[in-house]
Amino acid sequence: MYEVEVKVRADHATVRERLAERGAEKVNAVEQEDTYYDAPHREFVETDEALRIRRESPADADSFAELTYKGPLVETESKTRREVETEVAEGEAAGDILSALGFDPAATVRKERERFAFDGYTVTLDTVEGLGEFVEVETEVEDEASVEAAREAAFEVLSDLGLDPDDQIRTSYLGLLLGDEEV
Amino acid sequence: MYEVEVKVRADHATVRERLAERGAEKVNAVEQEDTYYDAPHREFVETDEALRIRRESPADADSFAELTYKGPLVETESKTRREVETEVAEGEAAGDILSALGFDPAATVRKERERFAFDGYTVTLDTVEGLGEFVEVETEVEDEASVEAAREAAFEVLSDLGLDPDDQIRTSYLGLLLGDEEV
Repeated sequence: MYEVEVKVRADHATVRERLAERGAEKVNAVEQEDTYYDAPHREFVETDEALRIRRESPADADSFAELTYKGPLVETESKTRREVETEVAEGEAAGDILSALGFDPAATVRKERERFAFDGYTVTLDTVEGLGEFVEVETEVEDEASVEAAREAAFEVLSDLGLDPDDQIRTSYLGLLLGDEEV
Repeated sequence: MYEVEVKVRADHATVRERLAERGAEKVNAVEQEDTYYDAPHREFVETDEALRIRRESPADADSFAELTYKGPLVETESKTRREVETEVAEGEAAGDILSALGFDPAATVRKERERFAFDGYTVTLDTVEGLGEFVEVETEVEDEASVEAAREAAFEVLSDLGLDPDDQIRTSYLGLLLGDEEV
């Protein structure tokens, strides 16, 4: 499974209006606290991987935790990566297991996230602690060959919402918080 | 939490009779498939740690998977270790995450396991593929100071069941399958 995702900085008020005009359907609202781990045997910054425990608190359901591995970029344009993920019953125990194995918490990203379904894509309005407001357009495809077309369509969704695909930020929230350049 | 556990080879038919005489209560019956992983940055055999994904199929409930870390022995007599464990929604994804991080499947232990509650202890009848029949007597204690007393009581339970504490095997099923000596 490949996640195709494009992201820009954008004022939410304007995008919200546009989504309403186009009849986009609000899917949910959640708070997410993401803890990223350093590895004892690799520099994830160099290998371009990530290991994360996410604690997600939906507005209208119970909290849960997920363990996620993100592999290196397979397609640079849309920051497409291999993702492997499973829900875990006890996020704290999962963190303790990682720590026992020598993986240390490196940074935490907290955000409020509203998701809309629009044109076959998920449009997400993120308010990230310490960073501000962003909009992501995202979908998943089964194989690498489908990535390019999905990315072009995601750019069209951005344009449709009055946003400029040229403003795309390829740096992750984690990277932005750690001071990496916005590219 | 410390797991206090003593194990002997024993014919199940005899122990089953004794458990019935003493009014032990059958708790459940399960099949377990345990995959143990090697680490990319440590020799678990040397550090005396283990990382495991267990797929458990109860006789009367849905299957589930658990991710478990076992730390080095803190008390040699009863093979007491620190254990950290969480259920994971998708055992296969958890295995894929470990593999992506460089942890490779090293060995798999398959067994049928019947659990009885007896005198505050869990008595387990294990039939291990490739190894045969074993009986374990097990409990959990909160702190290291309580381990010694719990171990002595576990030996009494063994004697009560007509088994000899001197027959104790401290080698894990994994170790036995890999050819380690029974001690």
